[in-house]
Amino acid sequence: MKKKIRAIQYGVGPIGASIVKLLREKQAVEIVGAIDIDPAKAGRDLGEVAGAADAPWGVKISANAKEVLEKSADVVIHSTSSALPRVMDQLLECLEAEACVVSTCEELSYPFRTYPELAAKLDAAAKDWGVALVGTGVNPGFVMDKLMVTLAAVAQRIDHAKAVRIVDASKRRLPLQNKIGAGMSVEEFRAQVAAGVIKHVGLPESVAMVADGLGLPVDQITETIEPAVAQERVQTEYLTVQPGQVAGVHQIARGLSGGNELIHLELQMYVGAKDPADTLELTGKPNITLTIPGGTPGDVATASVVVNTIPMILDAPAGLRTSRDLPLGFFAPGAKP
Amino acid sequence: MKKKIRAIQYGVGPIGASIVKLLREKQAVEIVGAIDIDPAKAGRDLGEVAGAADAPWGVKISANAKEVLEKSADVVIHSTSSALPRVMDQLLECLEAEACVVSTCEELSYPFRTYPELAAKLDAAAKDWGVALVGTGVNPGFVMDKLMVTLAAVAQRIDHAKAVRIVDASKRRLPLQNKIGAGMSVEEFRAQVAAGVIKHVGLPESVAMVADGLGLPVDQITETIEPAVAQERVQTEYLTVQPGQVAGVHQIARGLSGGNELIHLELQMYVGAKDPADTLELTGKPNITLTIPGGTPGDVATASVVVNTIPMILDAPAGLRTSRDLPLGFFAPGAKP
Repeated sequence: MKKKIRAIQYGVGPIGASIVKLLREKQAVEIVGAIDIDPAKAGRDLGEVAGAADAPWGVKISANAKEVLEKSADVVIHSTSSALPRVMDQLLECLEAEACVVSTCEELSYPFRTYPELAAKLDAAAKDWGVALVGTGVNPGFVMDKLMVTLAAVAQRIDHAKAVRIVDASKRRLPLQNKIGAGMSVEEFRAQVAAGVIKHVGLPESVAMVADGLGLPVDQITETIEPAVAQERVQTEYLTVQPGQVAGVHQIARGLSGGNELIHLELQMYVGAKDPADTLELTGKPNITLTIPGGTPGDVATASVVVNTIPMILDAPAGLRTSRDLPLGFFAPGAKP
Repeated sequence: MKKKIRAIQYGVGPIGASIVKLLREKQAVEIVGAIDIDPAKAGRDLGEVAGAADAPWGVKISANAKEVLEKSADVVIHSTSSALPRVMDQLLECLEAEACVVSTCEELSYPFRTYPELAAKLDAAAKDWGVALVGTGVNPGFVMDKLMVTLAAVAQRIDHAKAVRIVDASKRRLPLQNKIGAGMSVEEFRAQVAAGVIKHVGLPESVAMVADGLGLPVDQITETIEPAVAQERVQTEYLTVQPGQVAGVHQIARGLSGGNELIHLELQMYVGAKDPADTLELTGKPNITLTIPGGTPGDVATASVVVNTIPMILDAPAGLRTSRDLPLGFFAPGAKP
């Protein structure tokens, strides 16, 4: 029998917590370490911090990444920040420890346009150490980009690609409702957008992946963030939004060629959203539409996509990969190591 | 500039014809030969036989496979039969010519359960010659299997997988309407099923791929073929179906574990079908449904999937591959060789 996949969790925030709980269900995986710089977490048991029913797990969280990475993991699950420049040192440290990396860093999902130098640096380092890394998640990483490129397999000609993801944030946790500006005035919302606080990160990365995956000659990527304003009173478990107040975000990224739109990716995430769904539309030959009624549940599915990517990244050639390159699938709980 | 991908078409039936017309639109591809044993086709121009508007193409169809395969193609598009045992020699001949193969042979799409020895033989031969082969198409190859496995990337736990594909055959060509038994009596239909004439090939292969891709412990695969009986008169361009006559097929393949159904793949293909659609349902955590309203158009999409798979099979490691292993996508017409 082969030995288990040795995994380290890097970052134990809400997403990291849901990832490790899912990792524990995979018989093929052994969690050998966890890293978090938060003094409130370092030194404590990973299972306890993650809120696992079967805690303690006997795995201590440590703030000392270097020390934890010496445990020679096969894979590091990295979940600390959306911004690629902020996590470069963390990623390089993992690669130097000869571990593959699956990261939730949105800007890593398809970094070739925004950060070509950083992408090249990571690719070179990964090849030097003989390991592979990928940034993924449900969005970016799946709904608007990977699924679109997969659907494109049935097309003979593609003129335009559109994805609309409508998420009802009413049932999501409070930090998310706050993050999308629910309950703010329109003015306050715009100030938060200008300050870079309110923003779903990753749409331009998805546009870039779709452009390359569909061979669409996109020469410019634009992005707008507008408030979704409540038409009627919305009450969630945590807060109330009055008519005229902000219910959430309405964000659109476009891929243009000579000013003409070829790609349109739209995220509507607000409390009280009617008919949540993910819808993809390819215009060309043939025209084809794909719908996920209710929408891919972001809370569950982010951890899923990340954990399900582990077998694929361990199998991938060394270097910087994207979800576009990987044959996604399911990491069965009972799968043998 | 790299040289173009040299392609040979093996089999110039209706599907082969639609494949070569699509191939001609790809700037990166040069069609260097074509094989068909039909005396009505051999010796004629490929473009003319395919019914291309820009015929003649200056590519002659030949009945002599060996001779054509000496043109050292990078890839052979193979489209002669649904039955793997019948095409083994053809496939081996292509591999020996050191060409990758994309085949529409349904039983090649996932042959490991039904024909493990043949699969092993093809895998070994492909590795010997340093090339890769794959069987694919819209179904099997995409809708009920590859797309299902891709969708599974958002799942944490999967208890059951279901796919229903409803195709309205009214607008399809006459041979297809005949093939599904449209206009027959129920008795005649059952005789044709018993004789193995009426059957969509490939559902058990899709069940096997889904079972492996989703880690479901399927120990038995069953298949039923029933007539879809017309409730009212249906008139197509080619034929009329009276109430009580057969309108087409209703075929179900199941993956069982100890008698319990884990996988249910259902194909309804009949003239006058209401609400054609492809619907996938994963039950587990989370429950998730995906719909393609109107359904993936089989006539267009089979050629699409086959041609779009060419760049992936050229990039794949040597051996027998399946659509499950390949990161499907789009082969852009303007893509560079």
